[in-house]
Amino acid sequence: MADTSSLDALIQALRRLPGVGQKSAQRMAFHLLQHDRAGAQLLSQALAQAAGNVRHCRRCHTFTEGELCEVCQDATRDVTRLCVVETPADQAAMERTGAFKGLYFVLMGRLSPLDGVGPRDIGMQELLARAESEGVQEVILATSFTAEGEATAHALSELLARRGVRTTRLARGVPVGSELEYVDLGTIAHALADRR
Amino acid sequence: MADTSSLDALIQALRRLPGVGQKSAQRMAFHLLQHDRAGAQLLSQALAQAAGNVRHCRRCHTFTEGELCEVCQDATRDVTRLCVVETPADQAAMERTGAFKGLYFVLMGRLSPLDGVGPRDIGMQELLARAESEGVQEVILATSFTAEGEATAHALSELLARRGVRTTRLARGVPVGSELEYVDLGTIAHALADRR
Repeated sequence: MADTSSLDALIQALRRLPGVGQKSAQRMAFHLLQHDRAGAQLLSQALAQAAGNVRHCRRCHTFTEGELCEVCQDATRDVTRLCVVETPADQAAMERTGAFKGLYFVLMGRLSPLDGVGPRDIGMQELLARAESEGVQEVILATSFTAEGEATAHALSELLARRGVRTTRLARGVPVGSELEYVDLGTIAHALADRR
Repeated sequence: MADTSSLDALIQALRRLPGVGQKSAQRMAFHLLQHDRAGAQLLSQALAQAAGNVRHCRRCHTFTEGELCEVCQDATRDVTRLCVVETPADQAAMERTGAFKGLYFVLMGRLSPLDGVGPRDIGMQELLARAESEGVQEVILATSFTAEGEATAHALSELLARRGVRTTRLARGVPVGSELEYVDLGTIAHALADRR
């Protein structure tokens, strides 16, 4: 309908969100306009602010609003350990454990040639330069345990080994709280091989 | 992280969309900021515009940007038939069939006491007044064939019958293109009872 161009534009814009198709976009637009106009205004402002303010940390590439992120600014962190993660969400998960006091490098993705994501997109040159130059003694590869995450970790470990940098990978094993019966066989096999 | 308040605000705002939880909101925010800043700006503007411009048609309650929607403005429509639908999407589906030339009344919902949606929320008084006053000869109840849609249709048909307004309901039956084997039994039973 021609007299609902704002509505149509909203539905088309919502479709740019990942995992949102025509029907979901319609449902979202309908919900916001019928039941939550305040939410629509809030989301509009949050999007404009985030798109305008959020940029990448110069050192670790995570999202930040300043030149350097909070972790990179923190002088008490252990500069000899560098943890490589795929996304800010992964970094946040690592931080919540409270078990890591070193610094991060956030790839903002993972190698995925089929999707056109190459070494440049994950900042591989910057990572290699940083691993060599700053007294880093260990690079912990904490990419996902998916095919692409593993491939990324493998590529990085090869390149870092050639430069004489020691790399480690997060341990694979049985998740805390799980019963063996329900754990997949690949995980059990890895846990058995890496038993200690 | 305190230095990503714009990002956190965006994630919280995205969670107000129906069907979007914490993880989906994170994924959406990450996607927009990392891969589609133009999309974020576009969505921001579309939301502000729609929330500001879209209102309800004075006659049929559907979304529109003017006083009256296009259908209600169209003098060639058959004013003797009034089709009652739940949402603008339902109305759009009905329009796409090209089989209905009358006017609409859009409930913008359906009776749902458990969710606190009562007669006032679906504009029942306006619908009754309109059905009586404008030379309407037939009200076609095209609410959904769900429990709530059926209950809404039933309540409306009772009220309209008392006012001497003739109501009809969309036919229940076997969908076009489907094989009987895969159609649910309730639908087949209805199609059998309403055979012609």
